[in-house]
Amino acid sequence: MSSGLVVGIDLGATNVRVALGSLGRGILKRVEEKTVRDKRAEKLIEQLIRLIEAVAGDGLNEVKAIGIGSIGPLDSKRGIILKPANAPFRDVHIVEALSERFRVPAYLLNDCNAAVLGEKFFGAGKNVENLFYVTLSSGIGGGAIVDGNLLFGKDGNAVEVGHLVVDLEGRLRCGCGARGHWEAYCSGRNIPNFARYLVDEDPERFRGSEIEKLVKEGGLTSEVLFDLAKRGDEHALLIVEEIGKLNAVGFANINTCYDPEIITIGGSVALYNQDLIIPPIIENIGKYTINNVPEVKITPLGGDAVLYGAIALAENPPPQLRG
Amino acid sequence: MSSGLVVGIDLGATNVRVALGSLGRGILKRVEEKTVRDKRAEKLIEQLIRLIEAVAGDGLNEVKAIGIGSIGPLDSKRGIILKPANAPFRDVHIVEALSERFRVPAYLLNDCNAAVLGEKFFGAGKNVENLFYVTLSSGIGGGAIVDGNLLFGKDGNAVEVGHLVVDLEGRLRCGCGARGHWEAYCSGRNIPNFARYLVDEDPERFRGSEIEKLVKEGGLTSEVLFDLAKRGDEHALLIVEEIGKLNAVGFANINTCYDPEIITIGGSVALYNQDLIIPPIIENIGKYTINNVPEVKITPLGGDAVLYGAIALAENPPPQLRG
Repeated sequence: MSSGLVVGIDLGATNVRVALGSLGRGILKRVEEKTVRDKRAEKLIEQLIRLIEAVAGDGLNEVKAIGIGSIGPLDSKRGIILKPANAPFRDVHIVEALSERFRVPAYLLNDCNAAVLGEKFFGAGKNVENLFYVTLSSGIGGGAIVDGNLLFGKDGNAVEVGHLVVDLEGRLRCGCGARGHWEAYCSGRNIPNFARYLVDEDPERFRGSEIEKLVKEGGLTSEVLFDLAKRGDEHALLIVEEIGKLNAVGFANINTCYDPEIITIGGSVALYNQDLIIPPIIENIGKYTINNVPEVKITPLGGDAVLYGAIALAENPPPQLRG
Repeated sequence: MSSGLVVGIDLGATNVRVALGSLGRGILKRVEEKTVRDKRAEKLIEQLIRLIEAVAGDGLNEVKAIGIGSIGPLDSKRGIILKPANAPFRDVHIVEALSERFRVPAYLLNDCNAAVLGEKFFGAGKNVENLFYVTLSSGIGGGAIVDGNLLFGKDGNAVEVGHLVVDLEGRLRCGCGARGHWEAYCSGRNIPNFARYLVDEDPERFRGSEIEKLVKEGGLTSEVLFDLAKRGDEHALLIVEEIGKLNAVGFANINTCYDPEIITIGGSVALYNQDLIIPPIIENIGKYTINNVPEVKITPLGGDAVLYGAIALAENPPPQLRG
């Protein structure tokens, strides 16, 4: 095994992926498993140690650093995963555990901050200093590089763009408890609520439709909605159109706040429904923002943005995380 | 005159102020005039040269740099004032003109970016790395320092927070042409539109009131509204309450985007109406943001935030503006 390699970890609520690679050579080898569902932090640590050993094999002694892109909330600077909404483990001192076990530096970032580093070093952001990565997934999150610097903030929570208020009327409630956040309308988890709201608001328009039936009887998920829309269901397309308008507002607000040259998009809602999600954003973003419109496109890293970011993080930790 | 001094310029649409000072000694001397109202860029340059000579006096040869905080839009990196909405001059190559005339480096930032530097070096931000300055004035603008860095973006327009969409319904139109921006409701220039909207929306509530009369007959300005509210007019207070709710949303969005430790507030609407403007923001910001709530307060620099910022800029230009 070559020297000068690092380990990158993409830790999600459902799956964990561990890769061996480097800035110059990308991802050389990877393993993936379901994330353990156990309250005990040590069970997660045991899983990660096992996966790192598996992916590094004989070259374990040559690994020079570990980068972790994780679901939050985190205390990045202290290297702790606090209390993820969708995973059972709590207060995982992941940086301390892995750096002591393997005797190399380890670094922790939330998944979207890792992903924007991945974009900068491996993806669409190689030649720009102002870059934003958005995930449209079960939630909506972001990571920003402005003037070449990754944005942190007082608690590492700059760039919580899914929680920007876009609806003064506060018609829908976000998972965080507040009303009117972008995520309350357009994330995978909340799209069914938005569909229900639209049906309730104008029942005549949806009378007798498949969407009305699904809303009333249950069973309308984000996947079902987009599948109906792909088959040309006009009522599903109406809802997709409303989602598109709100996403254009969300992306306009990103442009207004961070003035990026390029915004890349990942996350399952976007990756699996590109033709329904991307065009309305590109078409409408300019109506809502005062700044010059940036390039907007799907990340070329696909579902690997966080994993690439974890490798970039291990090789190039941002100054906020260095001793 | 001591050596090691710099000149700071606060260039507004109405007034221009020029100061002599330093990081260590603050503002030592200042002059102020109405800004020339002339289409010709050279007339503005002549005014600035005259004011710099006046303020520097015998010490002109000791001035080592010039910082300018100006109304925008600007091309900061090229040092050009482009086409201010409320001033007649266009395409003023201010950096080139002043640096050639005085043979010292000159630097240009928009007024809010300058003000946040002023806050960092002279005001409430001395001991923090994450700081936001908001002006509530004829418009609404902001400047951000995140992780110790001033935010620029691709065109120097990161942090245009007055132009964040907060109202999906887009009930009011912003001066920039878009609908639903925070500034369209809460800036000094637009508060009368918001008052008119509220009166039209619920005429019964305002029947027979002084506010209704002013809205119908003309003459309702932001100053008149706040003066009525200070005298206890209940209908004026209703409108001030609605402004407070929207400002809380605007400040929550700032906290969600930049995660600052402290947000300071300047601008005439805030400085002259502190008891009506500040409490509703502090009281309600936590309802709308997911991040830990920052300290929120009036800038201790009062109306001099931009001028102090121009001095800080001359002494400590951000990396984006250095050769």
